[in-house]
Amino acid sequence: MKLDNDLLIKAAIGENVERTPVWLMRQAGRILPEYRAIRNSLSGFKELVETPHLAAEVTIQPVDILDVDAAIIFSDILVVPEAMGLSYQMIEKKGPWFEKTIHTNEDVDSLVIPDVNDQLSYVMEAIRITKKELNGRVPLIGFAGAPWTIFSYMIEGQGSKTFSKAKKMLYTNPELAHNLLKKITLTTIKYLKAQISAGADVVQLFDSWAGILTHQQYIEFGIKYVNEICNAINEVPVTVFSKGAYFARKELGELKCNTIGLDWNMDIKKSRELIGPEKTLQGNLDPCVLYSDFKNIQKQTNEMLCKFGKNRHIANLGHGVYPDITPDKVICFIEAVKTYKN
Amino acid sequence: MKLDNDLLIKAAIGENVERTPVWLMRQAGRILPEYRAIRNSLSGFKELVETPHLAAEVTIQPVDILDVDAAIIFSDILVVPEAMGLSYQMIEKKGPWFEKTIHTNEDVDSLVIPDVNDQLSYVMEAIRITKKELNGRVPLIGFAGAPWTIFSYMIEGQGSKTFSKAKKMLYTNPELAHNLLKKITLTTIKYLKAQISAGADVVQLFDSWAGILTHQQYIEFGIKYVNEICNAINEVPVTVFSKGAYFARKELGELKCNTIGLDWNMDIKKSRELIGPEKTLQGNLDPCVLYSDFKNIQKQTNEMLCKFGKNRHIANLGHGVYPDITPDKVICFIEAVKTYKN
Repeated sequence: MKLDNDLLIKAAIGENVERTPVWLMRQAGRILPEYRAIRNSLSGFKELVETPHLAAEVTIQPVDILDVDAAIIFSDILVVPEAMGLSYQMIEKKGPWFEKTIHTNEDVDSLVIPDVNDQLSYVMEAIRITKKELNGRVPLIGFAGAPWTIFSYMIEGQGSKTFSKAKKMLYTNPELAHNLLKKITLTTIKYLKAQISAGADVVQLFDSWAGILTHQQYIEFGIKYVNEICNAINEVPVTVFSKGAYFARKELGELKCNTIGLDWNMDIKKSRELIGPEKTLQGNLDPCVLYSDFKNIQKQTNEMLCKFGKNRHIANLGHGVYPDITPDKVICFIEAVKTYKN
Repeated sequence: MKLDNDLLIKAAIGENVERTPVWLMRQAGRILPEYRAIRNSLSGFKELVETPHLAAEVTIQPVDILDVDAAIIFSDILVVPEAMGLSYQMIEKKGPWFEKTIHTNEDVDSLVIPDVNDQLSYVMEAIRITKKELNGRVPLIGFAGAPWTIFSYMIEGQGSKTFSKAKKMLYTNPELAHNLLKKITLTTIKYLKAQISAGADVVQLFDSWAGILTHQQYIEFGIKYVNEICNAINEVPVTVFSKGAYFARKELGELKCNTIGLDWNMDIKKSRELIGPEKTLQGNLDPCVLYSDFKNIQKQTNEMLCKFGKNRHIANLGHGVYPDITPDKVICFIEAVKTYKN
């Protein structure tokens, strides 16, 4: 189906655009009262993830309410470890928690490479419903966690300040680590391909914990598998967002992907130099700018757009939008992008 | 009193050294069974901080047991906000928690600039006892949190993944932020001078949350006040450790201090280029390397020492040593530094 608004796709593949496209990570979520109304009517976060027509509804909300240039399917990166055999709970105000974690080679062997169209059919169904209801208005972004980040949760069983258990495994049992990362990679490739078959127009890999690794480790245990995924996905543009991995921007620029996400700490000019001219950059306003007044949001957004330039940029924050930001501030950011004059 | 081992001082002021000095952040702490024995005999962490002869005892333990080239006074950066009027609890397995936090200008006005020799007399007493018992064996490091990091705790009331409340204050009420940061800065200068009068041979500023700010914000709200402290302390060498602030290494190099701490993500060669030749660098082995086997610890330590070169380097980890590291691994790291041949 032809897209009415294909700015994001054009920007991703490096075509000239009339204006910079804009969306926000976590735009389908707690910032919208309409989301909270649906979420509060359910038993929990996972019920929403696993109920396709509701996941589709909250996916489309920011397109209707915020007028963003892309939808991103409402889901969670942790559906992948769950489909592989480690179920998780989302504990209110605490985050994800896995009862079982990976300690031994036998634990790795016990994980399956799932039939994603079966085990994760609810994601594909949510994508199909969303695509039908969007009816070509804007592109739909599919996503997955990058292997290192999924690996971290499988070892730690929850979030962590240091991810020292996951890092310890890299130092003490690199063979187990590589075996587990391979299995996650194979699953992720199948999962992203299934999302594309179901209708995703773009896919994004989130490597949320990239910044905790040394440069050497991120090349060996992180980028290696991101690269395998990028090489396997040829159907649609691919975005890689390695939060905190400023030290690996040169290597990220060498991936066979279209877009590299930047966090708010990454200097735009320096990032362009390191990543090279052939990639689209996505980001990177400090999410906390949206706490400030409208005038400052406009000013900082304009300064950001000026630094990125018109083409090969997808405007976004440098992290997911924080849940206590009000929709009027988000709309101010989006409007500032849309009305910016190069 | 003349020091028997003044390697750390010589390295800090840029004199040639026979070998690189070595110590570890959090060396006085949970890694040592001898520490845990004392800690477990008390009601809590704060009792240990506030009992000078015991604080002195655990300060000296790593000198006796690990044979490090410096002691660092056992204390906590949060004694400063407490002395200013915000008391904290240290909650087991959760970290610090403040009942009262800063919201308004009146809250800032209600904070005092304490008489540190009165309010924090237990720190000065611990320093005096430690100096006497060390009897010149190695230098004693005093420390404080940098103003931005203390500010963060005063606003958030606890640790945070995003420190979005503290950052929100910078965007929404910069005047309040500067007033509070000034008050913290004045207190910190008095506090460090009192530590020096009591016997500290070197002082270190810990800016643990520097990496959460944008470059522009860190200059305006972080480095500005670190700079004021550096300018005020002329008595002993000063170390500044701004964790995660890779983007501000050039500005850190312009501070009037002797030593800049590097975290494990900061490339050594690049850091030296940005910081310049006039500063001593401290760090920066990945703390998780100490989970690996002895051979790998030696290998990685040797590689690190080779990159830093012999002079103007103080060997350390790139973060505090993690509590589940065993002393034999720590000793392996220390021995690797001591036996390294340039």
